[in-house]
Amino acid sequence: MASIVSAKLESGYRFVAETTTGHKIEMDAGEKIGGADTAARPSALPFAGLAGCTGIDTLSILKKMKQEYTSFAVDVEGIDQTTEYPKHWTEIKVVFTVEGEVDENKLVKSINLSREKYCGVSAILKGKVKIHYGYILNGESTDLPDSE
Amino acid sequence: MASIVSAKLESGYRFVAETTTGHKIEMDAGEKIGGADTAARPSALPFAGLAGCTGIDTLSILKKMKQEYTSFAVDVEGIDQTTEYPKHWTEIKVVFTVEGEVDENKLVKSINLSREKYCGVSAILKGKVKIHYGYILNGESTDLPDSE
Repeated sequence: MASIVSAKLESGYRFVAETTTGHKIEMDAGEKIGGADTAARPSALPFAGLAGCTGIDTLSILKKMKQEYTSFAVDVEGIDQTTEYPKHWTEIKVVFTVEGEVDENKLVKSINLSREKYCGVSAILKGKVKIHYGYILNGESTDLPDSE
Repeated sequence: MASIVSAKLESGYRFVAETTTGHKIEMDAGEKIGGADTAARPSALPFAGLAGCTGIDTLSILKKMKQEYTSFAVDVEGIDQTTEYPKHWTEIKVVFTVEGEVDENKLVKSINLSREKYCGVSAILKGKVKIHYGYILNGESTDLPDSE
């Protein structure tokens, strides 16, 4: 077996996870349930990972296509969630916000290659979470058709 | 729609995600693919979230049961993964390492309540990832039977 992460309790409900690349990820519970709110909730992490994973894929493909973006962001928005335990998001939307000299067709192609082929986090999450995609290119917003 | 995370590209492949609770989560790619290795890989985040989520649940139940742990950690180990894209873990094991005056049956009950009822991250991941559980209580290692 290979270690993926090792999370140690520091105090209260605060955990610090160390990854195999030697980086630390901090988590804490909110004050309502007795945490100290010193770091992100664990429930946000899969979605942060999704944003980073599909963001890096998409950037990497845009770079290969010589597209010159000046700013790039990935937002994950919640659409629907369970009302009973275990509480979690069941439907979300990933929105890429891109500025610069980027061809729209190339952006769409990059996003689609990530969501359909490369992004391992999206491949895991989409077992239980319906994921929609869209982008805002130089201020203009477009929804991508759902796949599968 | 409600924001879950907003991840902004800082430079290269480095993203900083901000959660709705105002906390930041840093991510970067490795040097092999052109990243600067300044932070965790996005692919580790769902598993860090799993460790934190089930860790906080389990601690919270142990506290209600007046169990006095002196140290507490959650490791996530990889057992099997895809060989083709999208690359991701398909089988993992979550191991709780607990020391202190903790009754074994109460520890098992706490872990089972988290994995079966409360942990939203495990509920999402188990759509695509088989998750085994075990614990090491005061140095003695035990595997829990798989559920479902």
